[in-house]
Amino acid sequence: MPRSIAVIAGVGPGTGSAVARRFAQAYPVVLLARSQESLDPLAKDITQTGGAAIGIPTDVTSTSGMTSAMDRIKTQFGPDLSIAAAIYNVAGKFTRKPFLEQSAEEFLGALEPTVKGAFNFAQATLPLMLSGTDAQYPPTLIFTGATAALKGGSGLSGFAMSKFGIRAMSQSLAREFGPKGVHVSHAIIDGIIDTEKTKSYSPDLPDSKIDPNWIAESYWFLHTQPRTSFTHELDLRPYSETW
Amino acid sequence: MPRSIAVIAGVGPGTGSAVARRFAQAYPVVLLARSQESLDPLAKDITQTGGAAIGIPTDVTSTSGMTSAMDRIKTQFGPDLSIAAAIYNVAGKFTRKPFLEQSAEEFLGALEPTVKGAFNFAQATLPLMLSGTDAQYPPTLIFTGATAALKGGSGLSGFAMSKFGIRAMSQSLAREFGPKGVHVSHAIIDGIIDTEKTKSYSPDLPDSKIDPNWIAESYWFLHTQPRTSFTHELDLRPYSETW
Amino acid sequence: MPRSIAVIAGVGPGTGSAVARRFAQAYPVVLLARSQESLDPLAKDITQTGGAAIGIPTDVTSTSGMTSAMDRIKTQFGPDLSIAAAIYNVAGKFTRKPFLEQSAEEFLGALEPTVKGAFNFAQATLPLMLSGTDAQYPPTLIFTGATAALKGGSGLSGFAMSKFGIRAMSQSLAREFGPKGVHVSHAIIDGIIDTEKTKSYSPDLPDSKIDPNWIAESYWFLHTQPRTSFTHELDLRPYSETW
Amino acid sequence: MPRSIAVIAGVGPGTGSAVARRFAQAYPVVLLARSQESLDPLAKDITQTGGAAIGIPTDVTSTSGMTSAMDRIKTQFGPDLSIAAAIYNVAGKFTRKPFLEQSAEEFLGALEPTVKGAFNFAQATLPLMLSGTDAQYPPTLIFTGATAALKGGSGLSGFAMSKFGIRAMSQSLAREFGPKGVHVSHAIIDGIIDTEKTKSYSPDLPDSKIDPNWIAESYWFLHTQPRTSFTHELDLRPYSETW
Repeated sequence: MPRSIAVIAGVGPGTGSAVARRFAQAYPVVLLARSQESLDPLAKDITQTGGAAIGIPTDVTSTSGMTSAMDRIKTQFGPDLSIAAAIYNVAGKFTRKPFLEQSAEEFLGALEPTVKGAFNFAQATLPLMLSGTDAQYPPTLIFTGATAALKGGSGLSGFAMSKFGIRAMSQSLAREFGPKGVHVSHAIIDGIIDTEKTKSYSPDLPDSKIDPNWIAESYWFLHTQPRTSFTHELDLRPYSETW
Repeated sequence: MPRSIAVIAGVGPGTGSAVARRFAQAYPVVLLARSQESLDPLAKDITQTGGAAIGIPTDVTSTSGMTSAMDRIKTQFGPDLSIAAAIYNVAGKFTRKPFLEQSAEEFLGALEPTVKGAFNFAQATLPLMLSGTDAQYPPTLIFTGATAALKGGSGLSGFAMSKFGIRAMSQSLAREFGPKGVHVSHAIIDGIIDTEKTKSYSPDLPDSKIDPNWIAESYWFLHTQPRTSFTHELDLRPYSETW
Repeated sequence: MPRSIAVIAGVGPGTGSAVARRFAQAYPVVLLARSQESLDPLAKDITQTGGAAIGIPTDVTSTSGMTSAMDRIKTQFGPDLSIAAAIYNVAGKFTRKPFLEQSAEEFLGALEPTVKGAFNFAQATLPLMLSGTDAQYPPTLIFTGATAALKGGSGLSGFAMSKFGIRAMSQSLAREFGPKGVHVSHAIIDGIIDTEKTKSYSPDLPDSKIDPNWIAESYWFLHTQPRTSFTHELDLRPYSETW
Repeated sequence: MPRSIAVIAGVGPGTGSAVARRFAQAYPVVLLARSQESLDPLAKDITQTGGAAIGIPTDVTSTSGMTSAMDRIKTQFGPDLSIAAAIYNVAGKFTRKPFLEQSAEEFLGALEPTVKGAFNFAQATLPLMLSGTDAQYPPTLIFTGATAALKGGSGLSGFAMSKFGIRAMSQSLAREFGPKGVHVSHAIIDGIIDTEKTKSYSPDLPDSKIDPNWIAESYWFLHTQPRTSFTHELDLRPYSETW
């Protein structure tokens, strides 16, 4: 079994899947998502195209859930394991809703992927990244972010708080773990991602949705940067986007 | 009983007290803090100097706690009540601690004043602000923030997430409630605040700590701005601060 | 003759005039603008309402022009003179024009108020501010900026470069002269200013233009902040503005 | 002769040379710098390693100088020419100097690479980029920036104004020419670049200088991004940098 793996949390049909496929070209990939059903087709597909993938149904917002997933990973890959890349791609649902109509449950629920999930994921993966800093590429922890990481919006208090929060964590971990050889980066995905779900939405201009494969390619590029030359933040948006 | 009040959450010996005293020059003030003991001396002091103040022991991170406090406020001030100014000054403890040594409880605990408290406070106060937009000064909701709202730091993931989050909420509410006549603003307090607690700390230069009375004065100034001319963010730091 | 004066560069009918009137309540004001004709009515008006004002026709983008103006000021007010407040309110014309249709002359011309004017003004006034740091209020240098200080725009390369540049200068001077007791601040004016010229423009909502008197009031407030508590940047926009 | 070329302005021994070598793997490269002597060794070296390069001594801060350079380029490569990539890497000298000790000449001189050079370069190259939007990779205009693009500094008014200005131009052109298929990007280079000149400077930690080849690699990566997925800004800094 290879010593270095990639772990991707949040492997929906867009960014997560594309990132998993891309990193599977170099590493066995561990896929984390809530339900086994959403994991199986992707894992199978990666395996059939020559990669190695296992899907572990995990609620990353649960500390014990994340711990169990790590135990399974360690059992599977053995004691020498290190994590070459960990991608946190779990996001709350985007909903624009008048602030005074939101219940505390809704508001806090939307924040769970950030305040609980991102924390659990970073805590579980970083120790196995610190042990792999002599690998070909520095171990890389990437957080998928959004425009709302830079700017609040009407009806978006919770969503913006969540995205600002991910950015705060990414910056803080970059400053703490960078000097230890871990590359922490934050990607601002600004625009509609081209997936099955967004197929019906046709903008006026061609090529106006972000290609998830190029999000993946950009993440892979971040991963290959040596420690002399880390990028800590980049944006990705279609040429036609106003911003 | 006067129709318009100011509500200040987080009335410690520094910023909160100073803000309460300043707004008490114009409005009866409601002081919120966890313990009655910390409220009594301030309320008494304000009353003795000609103001009106009541302290309500409240855990703002609890939705029901915040609701009870509002019930008491409504009982006290009657059905015509509107809130002229609401100041959210509750902050998590600043602790710099290696990320991997933090427990989930610690991390989440540090976030409660933001993800729960700020939400509860804004939800409870905004409805009573919307009813007062014809007052002399537009109703004003101010969040006390910090430098960590702009920049993460090693060992500060939770603190930065909390401060980024407050800023996200402030920006979002400003965009949602501004057009309804409510002034929402965020203050970046950058530096050591001059309080009893920081007395022993003597910087090389005189006047190198922020005067809480001037934080209060600045908040008051924000409150007086008409809706033609709202400031949504300002910083406050000593002349000697490097930043 | 009083020892402390305020100098305002760029006294058009909106912000500049309002700022001059406000500071004239406390100091003799020196008004700088290109033509004597635009200075006379304002100076006269200030004088008639009990203030003291002199207008000096000056091209601030010319180093020698700015030097001559300072000579006249020193002659007028004597050797003990210090500058309590210096407001730089000169802006290039806002024009949105396709980049490839701009001539080098146009582009550079639009930048002159920043790269030449702001430099000349700061160099001429700062020495007389350093001598007044024991006054009631710390000497204050304020630059009027705009949203384009934070964000470029299509067809706005030159305008954005100019506004980003003013902000860069303000931040740099704040860091250099703050520790010497001079308060340097940058105001982001975002929205249409309510002047004669913009009268015909009626937005859907009332009070949707920025009141220049409140820009002035905000500048005055900045001026009164003690060195313990300097604000280095604030925004000003109508409640109805989307941003 | 191939139809598509890359043009690099500012080909000193660090970033510029590395970028030229990298893009020479795909395109004939045109090198612009003040003196023929600094161009010859690089052009020769690229040619000897299988690339095509011509050096044109050019003062990019002179509009006529830049026009002459373009004429030579058009003569050399024929009427079908398009520019696949244009990299603006010309920077003013970094000097930290008390503001009041700077002459107008010094201050303005430091700004010329931005206010004149970047303008001339963008105006000269963009028309030949618009004609190449159907190439394999979208035509790409990259500006080399610095940390001072985000933050002013004591003694750095001119330098910061220059760097803020480049960023303003990059953002504005991105918004104007992005919808036309041109990829405009800004790179924040934060740290000491590893060159002959900085060899003597040994930081405490190994690998603490930015590898210019990885700046080049990152620029190349930007160039390969399709128009669905443009990055408009990224930072590059060593793992050991505090920021």
